[in-house]
Amino acid sequence: MIEEVLETMNKYDMIKKGDKVIVGVSGGPDSMCLLHLLYSLKKDFNISIVVAHLNHCLRGKDADEDEIYVRRFCENLNIEFYNKKVDVNKISQEKGISCETAGREARYNFFEKLKQEIKAQKIALAHNANDRAETIIMRIMRGTGLEGLIGIKPVRDSIIRPLINIDRKHIESYCSKNNIKPRIDKTNFESIYARNKVRLELIPYIEENFNKDIIQTINRLSDIVEIDNSYLNEISQKMYKKYCYIKLNNIIISKEAFLENRAILSRIIRIALGKLKGNLYNVQKSHIDDVVELQKGDTGKKIILPNEVVIQNNYGNIYMCEKKIKIEKINNEFKLNIGINNVISMNINVKLNLINNGENLDLNKKYVKYFDYDKIKEDITIRYRQNGDLFVPFGMKGNKKLKDLFIDLKIPRYKRDKIPIICFDGNIGWVVGVRIGDLYKVCKDTKKILEIKIEREE
Amino acid sequence: MIEEVLETMNKYDMIKKGDKVIVGVSGGPDSMCLLHLLYSLKKDFNISIVVAHLNHCLRGKDADEDEIYVRRFCENLNIEFYNKKVDVNKISQEKGISCETAGREARYNFFEKLKQEIKAQKIALAHNANDRAETIIMRIMRGTGLEGLIGIKPVRDSIIRPLINIDRKHIESYCSKNNIKPRIDKTNFESIYARNKVRLELIPYIEENFNKDIIQTINRLSDIVEIDNSYLNEISQKMYKKYCYIKLNNIIISKEAFLENRAILSRIIRIALGKLKGNLYNVQKSHIDDVVELQKGDTGKKIILPNEVVIQNNYGNIYMCEKKIKIEKINNEFKLNIGINNVISMNINVKLNLINNGENLDLNKKYVKYFDYDKIKEDITIRYRQNGDLFVPFGMKGNKKLKDLFIDLKIPRYKRDKIPIICFDGNIGWVVGVRIGDLYKVCKDTKKILEIKIEREE
Repeated sequence: MIEEVLETMNKYDMIKKGDKVIVGVSGGPDSMCLLHLLYSLKKDFNISIVVAHLNHCLRGKDADEDEIYVRRFCENLNIEFYNKKVDVNKISQEKGISCETAGREARYNFFEKLKQEIKAQKIALAHNANDRAETIIMRIMRGTGLEGLIGIKPVRDSIIRPLINIDRKHIESYCSKNNIKPRIDKTNFESIYARNKVRLELIPYIEENFNKDIIQTINRLSDIVEIDNSYLNEISQKMYKKYCYIKLNNIIISKEAFLENRAILSRIIRIALGKLKGNLYNVQKSHIDDVVELQKGDTGKKIILPNEVVIQNNYGNIYMCEKKIKIEKINNEFKLNIGINNVISMNINVKLNLINNGENLDLNKKYVKYFDYDKIKEDITIRYRQNGDLFVPFGMKGNKKLKDLFIDLKIPRYKRDKIPIICFDGNIGWVVGVRIGDLYKVCKDTKKILEIKIEREE
Repeated sequence: MIEEVLETMNKYDMIKKGDKVIVGVSGGPDSMCLLHLLYSLKKDFNISIVVAHLNHCLRGKDADEDEIYVRRFCENLNIEFYNKKVDVNKISQEKGISCETAGREARYNFFEKLKQEIKAQKIALAHNANDRAETIIMRIMRGTGLEGLIGIKPVRDSIIRPLINIDRKHIESYCSKNNIKPRIDKTNFESIYARNKVRLELIPYIEENFNKDIIQTINRLSDIVEIDNSYLNEISQKMYKKYCYIKLNNIIISKEAFLENRAILSRIIRIALGKLKGNLYNVQKSHIDDVVELQKGDTGKKIILPNEVVIQNNYGNIYMCEKKIKIEKINNEFKLNIGINNVISMNINVKLNLINNGENLDLNKKYVKYFDYDKIKEDITIRYRQNGDLFVPFGMKGNKKLKDLFIDLKIPRYKRDKIPIICFDGNIGWVVGVRIGDLYKVCKDTKKILEIKIEREE
């Protein structure tokens, strides 16, 4: 089996000398096998290994015992061990996504964040050929497109899957040969019932009656589809750049895009929806069809897609935006809401999002700024300047009169009244386009980041 | 059900007013339902209907009774009826292809030929949503790529499939409501065992345990894949034209093609193989991979693909040709073989093929001519002119001296010795590049056509 794993690792160029590799370990046979294997190849590859374990809080005491098991295994071999607890059930309910999706998101966030913190290069995960085939079969049965037929990729960004071509039975025999006694069969977030039925009934039935090599057959299909799909995606990304642009928090797909081949057009729409929301949760083929139909119809018509996305036909161009809410002015200020498009006036939209991942923040954008969400107790508001405004500018300690700041920066008086000001609990957090405040800035200890994006049409 | 069928027919623009439609009828429930349906819609659509029935000689007396059943049904409704008998088993053995493929080919040839003869516009076939889903599921289990996931198309050229979105159970209930008593369940050429297992065990199991709408789910997947695949094929056809050309019966893929994305490159290679042999029987993904590997290797290296196709790396360009056989000269002439590339000298190749379908023959090509194969008793040879050669030129009745023909046509003497002459049983059939003979020309009654293609490098 080691030879096959090495072949896969070579084929996809998974590891470079000197890499620090985070191994995601649940305690089940797959990840224990992967850990043992990478540990024994550590010297040959000249890599270092750390283990990351996420406790999903899904299986009560069992989950805690998994954690202890992996921790002890690491202690015995003197492997660095990191763990984290996340209440996946709670997140799933809060976000209205499946437990499976919430669990995956939590794991990948944890791994990515750890990667940054400990300056690792790779994240090794233990998906095997059966996982991939099962996933694909389930998706075929549920309904899917090309994307779904790809299943699990051998490599994506810094994530590597050395066992992706290995059958489960080989993994199990590796474990027993090496005297590894894995904790659990598998942590199944999605309908355990369905996957187990696929694994224990459907696949054995197909193996017996049609093709004893069904796992590898499905994996080959997946490889072919991946080649075709990634080419289509590549072209669609180019076409997205050609036809789409952003204006006042809308993503606009020009009507010319709708003359493209349907294979490309569908992908352009998906890319646009993805950019708008950061993900494609709950977006189905029928929604894409709806957008295409909308474009053929009358100007002014609207539809609402899942996740509160509003799509409008504007003279044949398609405008996509998150649900906009016109905010009422109370005592000369507007109270802002997170997760929607706050419409302040005809030409000012404010979008607030909470983001988990603090990497790659671009702090130099003029109209997008980041704040430490946990320091905000109650209200987030927007208003214009008032007499006596005080403010601790970024990098300073004490209060400064806002008026003095304007004078220092030589901002002409007629402009001062038109500069929006974001306040947190009544304190100035951002003089938009001018300076953020020091009190709410993102720092090392920040856990939840609030992104505020202001779109103004001049 | 009629509404659904009408919707499908409209969506794909299947029928125009005044069309003459050939309905392929086996006698089973699907085709009887289709026939009955089209017959009852005949007036509304303003179309005329004829029935074509192919007896595959696969089920002995039963097959003959099917024929009688369909014939009587047509007589009762006063529908024109055409039938043909083909020994599919024999063809399958002769050509080394499956019974399924041979049967399909025989049916489609029969329908196409009939279409020409009676000047029909459309051929209506009775594939239903279950057929399509079963085909796709079987291909997934056997191993396939995008092409295989498409299954059966609603429309291809003049072939239309009005029942393609209708479930089998609706067809059966249509038959019983309309008092139609179909002959057989289905003529299954491919492993009846496998398809029946899919139909009677696998699909019901999936319906019960995973998705009761699996038939339509698979059909939707197929629709999506078709859009993506036809776009990829369209691009690949353009790239084929850009990178490939023909020389001495070789199809040459320029090395630049191998820099294209793999999704496109694989299709270019398939198109080339298809053009060379007229079909892609037995070509698998691994063969395409082999061609790509060959191109990366040393010049001069060769591989043989199924159907006697020889692939050679020529300084990074890929040369594809049918197996070439160097023909030995006996008594100043060369005996030619059908189905291979006859190499006469360094710069003359002769390719002989038997073709079934006499439509669209281009009779004006200088170096490709067609002959009535059944008039040839023994040998097909090639030689140069000899003293006393006599010949009945095309369109004439009596013999003419070849020498006189050359003089009439003012062909200079020094050229006359270099003009190849094709003989059938010793009689001149073609003075290559000059004139064909009258005795072996293709006429109305010709059944088997011999195509001779001469490639000369000047």
